[in-house]
Amino acid sequence: MAFTFQINDDVHFKHDQQLLAKANHNRPTLHHQQVKPQTLVKLVKQADQLEGWGVEAVAPASALAEQPLKRDGKLILDFGDHQVGQFSIQIDSVGSPMDAPLSLKLKFAEMPAELARNSADYDGWLSKSWIQEETVHLDTLPATLALPRRYSFRYVELTVIDTSPKWQAVFSEPVVTTVSSANPQAVSVPKLADPELKKIYQVGVKTLADCMQDVFEDGPKRDRRLWIGDLRLQALADYATFKNTALVKRCLYLFGAMPAEDGRVPANVFTKPQATPDDTFLFDYSLFFISILADYQAFQADAEVMQDLYPVAKRQMDVALKQVSVAGELQLTEDNPVFIDWSNDFDKATAGQAVIIYVLKQFIQLAKQQADPDLATYQSQLAALVAFAKTKLFDADQGLFVSGPNREVNVASQVWMTLAHVLSPAERQRVMQTTVHQLFPITGIATPYMYHHVTAALFEAGLTDDAIALMKNYWGKMIRLGADTYWEAFDPNHPDYSPYGSPILNSYCHAWSCTPVYLIDKYLVK
Amino acid sequence: MAFTFQINDDVHFKHDQQLLAKANHNRPTLHHQQVKPQTLVKLVKQADQLEGWGVEAVAPASALAEQPLKRDGKLILDFGDHQVGQFSIQIDSVGSPMDAPLSLKLKFAEMPAELARNSADYDGWLSKSWIQEETVHLDTLPATLALPRRYSFRYVELTVIDTSPKWQAVFSEPVVTTVSSANPQAVSVPKLADPELKKIYQVGVKTLADCMQDVFEDGPKRDRRLWIGDLRLQALADYATFKNTALVKRCLYLFGAMPAEDGRVPANVFTKPQATPDDTFLFDYSLFFISILADYQAFQADAEVMQDLYPVAKRQMDVALKQVSVAGELQLTEDNPVFIDWSNDFDKATAGQAVIIYVLKQFIQLAKQQADPDLATYQSQLAALVAFAKTKLFDADQGLFVSGPNREVNVASQVWMTLAHVLSPAERQRVMQTTVHQLFPITGIATPYMYHHVTAALFEAGLTDDAIALMKNYWGKMIRLGADTYWEAFDPNHPDYSPYGSPILNSYCHAWSCTPVYLIDKYLVK
Repeated sequence: MAFTFQINDDVHFKHDQQLLAKANHNRPTLHHQQVKPQTLVKLVKQADQLEGWGVEAVAPASALAEQPLKRDGKLILDFGDHQVGQFSIQIDSVGSPMDAPLSLKLKFAEMPAELARNSADYDGWLSKSWIQEETVHLDTLPATLALPRRYSFRYVELTVIDTSPKWQAVFSEPVVTTVSSANPQAVSVPKLADPELKKIYQVGVKTLADCMQDVFEDGPKRDRRLWIGDLRLQALADYATFKNTALVKRCLYLFGAMPAEDGRVPANVFTKPQATPDDTFLFDYSLFFISILADYQAFQADAEVMQDLYPVAKRQMDVALKQVSVAGELQLTEDNPVFIDWSNDFDKATAGQAVIIYVLKQFIQLAKQQADPDLATYQSQLAALVAFAKTKLFDADQGLFVSGPNREVNVASQVWMTLAHVLSPAERQRVMQTTVHQLFPITGIATPYMYHHVTAALFEAGLTDDAIALMKNYWGKMIRLGADTYWEAFDPNHPDYSPYGSPILNSYCHAWSCTPVYLIDKYLVK
Repeated sequence: MAFTFQINDDVHFKHDQQLLAKANHNRPTLHHQQVKPQTLVKLVKQADQLEGWGVEAVAPASALAEQPLKRDGKLILDFGDHQVGQFSIQIDSVGSPMDAPLSLKLKFAEMPAELARNSADYDGWLSKSWIQEETVHLDTLPATLALPRRYSFRYVELTVIDTSPKWQAVFSEPVVTTVSSANPQAVSVPKLADPELKKIYQVGVKTLADCMQDVFEDGPKRDRRLWIGDLRLQALADYATFKNTALVKRCLYLFGAMPAEDGRVPANVFTKPQATPDDTFLFDYSLFFISILADYQAFQADAEVMQDLYPVAKRQMDVALKQVSVAGELQLTEDNPVFIDWSNDFDKATAGQAVIIYVLKQFIQLAKQQADPDLATYQSQLAALVAFAKTKLFDADQGLFVSGPNREVNVASQVWMTLAHVLSPAERQRVMQTTVHQLFPITGIATPYMYHHVTAALFEAGLTDDAIALMKNYWGKMIRLGADTYWEAFDPNHPDYSPYGSPILNSYCHAWSCTPVYLIDKYLVK
């Protein structure tokens, strides 16, 4: 997540210190590894790679110290895989005594395409401060340059801005100290006969691991914060892999501790320098707090968490249900928009209706466990929502759901109604079959988040071959384009698409893209 | 000094550890002060200022925290006078929670003209690494930004490269922690009736103080190292003001400890990370080691220093005298050039001859004190040098010295022959009178170093009014153009001249320019 912004500076938040204390108590242990680059590479045009740029090895990394650089001298270190962590390198001078500082630019890139762009050319709305580039001056050498910030990268480009005409800079011992709260020992990779699926799974695990930090981050390069939409998918992927349930618990408490005064949890929170809720709200994201709690309880029953957070979950449902008419129709508002997907080029009413049904079903399970006296009310509201969906939103002639005043047919409606199990198993299989026949290949969707839900709906509808084919055409295609981790945004019809106008702002390791590990585990392994 | 470069990578140096230990033993105490800016200013066109740029106050510095900045937002802090030290500032965010790092550029400028230039446009030979500009990223706010490097500046320009569309950065408590080994309490400013001379004196004291660091630096902004040519003038200025003789001693030991294998001391040395001689040699600079030692002994007799360094001094003279013919003519070589001045557009043979005479006279004083058995030899060599100068280099018809095969008449020859007292007092007064009448106004000289020697020669020749007029037209003109400290380079006929093609590389506080304090003290006060 990241591609949304609202400014709601009149919203006030509560801070429940007891819940925040529990969030702190579940702060994860961070694991570190020292990783060294294997090769020095150069940027080369490669038509089959993202934006037409790849790399080619020019020397082993051990040759680094034999390559003194002067003004405009440049080299690229390839760490062989995606890394998240802190970078350091030794620098010395050769030639005459060092009669001027060293000025050095370091650029960290997840993908070669980033190195092909000049950062100064970027002028989009997203903050330039995300560009992973530093310029440093060193007054005396030899020195260890240990950059204090955390970067997300596979490649490090060193460019000497200047030495002096009398001496050159030499580099040695580059190393990244990685950081992640994922314990690699905790994963037992399932045996998968299909090598492509195996690779898809592995890249998913790496994506998830690199996003697991002090919280589940959406992307270690950019945004670096906890979004509910990403958290829901990360938690599901975590149960299938690292099983770091304390981290899920921590994140649930963070959201639960800081609702707005009307009770809604924000779409995301910040944790540094202290826990702070963002002023962004999304209808479906607030509801997904319930879904995350329900998924967590299903994986690991936890009475304390239920006790603490059921009231927060109930509040999300109650606030959301205020937007449902007596007839059972969800009525969306502009100031609490439903996300579904980045694209705003399709009608989201029916998908939104499906999301509240999906979540209300999970909530009713929790309400039963809690013996909530209001259970019957929720059940009747669910019935009304489902009845409205079946009678008003499902077009039996087309065999598809329609959305909005123009009765628009779109993929998201079918997918979410399928995931919400509004129709019978046979009916929803027919809906998804019709979707595949009439609405595929998918157009206009650029998020792995939405592709995840499409793939999940195909699996849910029993269309396993279609689901696998989509997974290979989507996540598999990222790998073929050079991905070491899955991307925040990817439109297979327009592989070079960036929502920000430049790959240097794209996050090429993004949490909501890691879900093949969950889908493979749930539908192909278990 | 700075504007010269040689690469002599085949030169080997000795390191006398005993002398280096004495250099370390005389390491100075550094004094610190906390200085805050008084005003926020903006850059404005002012025709009578350097390069046509000045500043205008827009608000008191206390208004800083009321000026939140977003992308491309900019402000300039004016510290009111030249500062050398480390800068820090408090930064916070206002608006929505901070959803992206802060990216901030800081530019430190001694003169407004530097702020008017875009650093990226500079492409000269001098290292770009000297440009006093940093770009930093701060991942979380509030934060204290305490930059680790030392800068030389009066103005600090803060430019927000980016926040995000949702929040702004606010700044407060900017402060510089100054550093200098000059103790301001040690100076008793002479009473000067002429306010212009008083101001010229004060700016000279400030220039000297800001160059007095761990060694006598040539410029705190650029080069930041110990050059013999600057040291000789700084030491003379120091005796007139701060009287920090330990610092002079330290610098003498540094040079004395690290001669090349042929005995010559290098033109400059580095002290960080450890004492290292540069591979640059200049005929006159090596000789000036003697001059500095003699001036030091004249100010403060020091038997230990004499004992330690007389052999080094003698070696400089012996090496230099190898270039003197039996007839008493100095024969310059290309690999050991004489400096005299940056300009290479005049013949330097006669000025060089005068320098060796000037220094040999000082050396003979030292040799007498040491009862050197070779004294008579040096005296006869001096006689030959003087005789050659009088008979072959002085053109009685013109009443001026000539230089080189084309018998060129230039200012430097007259000045150095006057300083060397080659002719009688009456004769040298006539030489300088003729110089003023025929060769003034001076053209083609852009260094305060050479202007110092011209002014000193006028004083030596008793032409006090001419000397004062020149001081006011030269150092006084820098002040009128906006100088808080004196500049490395200044041609009053071309005030905007930069030897580096851009004011952002000029050093506007440079040691060899501080000498009005010495000249005023010696010729107008005592």
